[in-house]
Amino acid sequence: MPNGTESTAETRRLLLAGPDFALDAVDPRSTPGFDGGKKEGAAALAAGADTLASLQEKLFAESRAGSDIAVLLILQGMDTSGKGGVVRHVVGQVHPQGVQHYAFKAPTEQEQQHSFLWRVRRQLPAPGMLGVFDRSHYEDVLIHRVRALSPAEEVEKRYRAIRTFEDQVVGAGTRVVKVMLHISQDEQKARLAERLDRKDKFWKYSPDDIEDRALWQQYQEAYQVAVERTSTPDTPWYVVPADRKWYARLAVQHLLTATLEDMQLSWPRASFDVAAEQERLHSS
Amino acid sequence: MPNGTESTAETRRLLLAGPDFALDAVDPRSTPGFDGGKKEGAAALAAGADTLASLQEKLFAESRAGSDIAVLLILQGMDTSGKGGVVRHVVGQVHPQGVQHYAFKAPTEQEQQHSFLWRVRRQLPAPGMLGVFDRSHYEDVLIHRVRALSPAEEVEKRYRAIRTFEDQVVGAGTRVVKVMLHISQDEQKARLAERLDRKDKFWKYSPDDIEDRALWQQYQEAYQVAVERTSTPDTPWYVVPADRKWYARLAVQHLLTATLEDMQLSWPRASFDVAAEQERLHSS
Repeated sequence: MPNGTESTAETRRLLLAGPDFALDAVDPRSTPGFDGGKKEGAAALAAGADTLASLQEKLFAESRAGSDIAVLLILQGMDTSGKGGVVRHVVGQVHPQGVQHYAFKAPTEQEQQHSFLWRVRRQLPAPGMLGVFDRSHYEDVLIHRVRALSPAEEVEKRYRAIRTFEDQVVGAGTRVVKVMLHISQDEQKARLAERLDRKDKFWKYSPDDIEDRALWQQYQEAYQVAVERTSTPDTPWYVVPADRKWYARLAVQHLLTATLEDMQLSWPRASFDVAAEQERLHSS
Repeated sequence: MPNGTESTAETRRLLLAGPDFALDAVDPRSTPGFDGGKKEGAAALAAGADTLASLQEKLFAESRAGSDIAVLLILQGMDTSGKGGVVRHVVGQVHPQGVQHYAFKAPTEQEQQHSFLWRVRRQLPAPGMLGVFDRSHYEDVLIHRVRALSPAEEVEKRYRAIRTFEDQVVGAGTRVVKVMLHISQDEQKARLAERLDRKDKFWKYSPDDIEDRALWQQYQEAYQVAVERTSTPDTPWYVVPADRKWYARLAVQHLLTATLEDMQLSWPRASFDVAAEQERLHSS
């Protein structure tokens, strides 16, 4: 997976959750499309930064010229799967003015009085922005199924509601990139142990994490069903093996780059007479 | 200006707009506190990244443990003074999840129906966040004075309203760092010429920029008065010479670092029994 248009499109093809998707067939330690190790992966991530940043700047520039297009990256995964690291190391490569990041927590009382998509609509990226959801409306089918927070029929309805909602989002000009960071139960154990071992990581740990961990298999099933029901040609899921952090970051960088490349962005034409403005400036 | 607590505090001392502040005594090409050139400046900026990122993460972590503290960076300056570059190269050094960036444009019709501070309050950073204002409520005294968009008495009242408002913000736990990026008229001419010379920069240019440029001296006076009236011990202004982009970025990095150092941030203690959780994890 060297950099360039071909390789980013190849990553996308390899990680796409198509009609026959089976989560248990994805090895969390694998690195599809990339032969190198950690060092080469970090170098490739750094090498792709300028391309990603430049594409994002074009997206932003087009919005200034009146375009409605935007990109929404949805990040899902078990605790410690590396969502924050992807934000730091991939989203952090683009200009902060073009990023709209939102971390969804358990819904507030006010939010609970509305449909589960109400609070999501309010966080959709504005034109020109790269929106990033750290967790999302998918929690409303994942945790709700696993912990039976809603009746099964309600969860079933929500898959449809999500498809309709995401179609509207795409119809309004926003590309949606849905990423599941897929880690193994052993890797999670090691990462949680690190959080309990370092004073500077305590704040990232919650005793609830162990309760969710006990429901590992149920969560895997819930992800399998959610991906099956909501991976469509316009709003596909990508399942990214995430036991190796460097790989997950590089893969998401490729997914974003490939998405932006597809949009055939270009620098807006001047909305003024360039020569005349040069003359005005000269005399100023 | 090597890195370290002393040097960041020294930058702050050198750039502070105190009671005798005179804008016309600040040389936009100067580099207070730093003897090196562009190359050394870029190296120093890179060297300070981890310190800034780590301080910001502590700020964020403290908010998760219930703290209300935040930081607000207000960036002002003439067109092309480098506000966007500071955001890209300094704010871009910290985790995007901890950044709340907002670019103020001319007020909308809805916004005009409210006090000039109404829309500003809505964008104040949440606890734990580094808020960044690209332009701000200071436009409501700067441009309003220069272009007489409001009567002189109204502008006069606004300085007081701003002081009261910012005192409230500080009282609620947010440190306010106000930065004026100070460029020369010649440097602006060169930067605008570049925008007119490059297809990938047209979108950043507006014919209005030339009209503002014609009012250069009036803007300088408006800045002088605004800084005089609103630079207080708790909400000081820093005037950063900005003809050299590398210096302006390094200086703002130092200002943010010094501010965060002052807050004596620390990693939150565990809100759980660490040994008990390690045992639970082990058995999971």
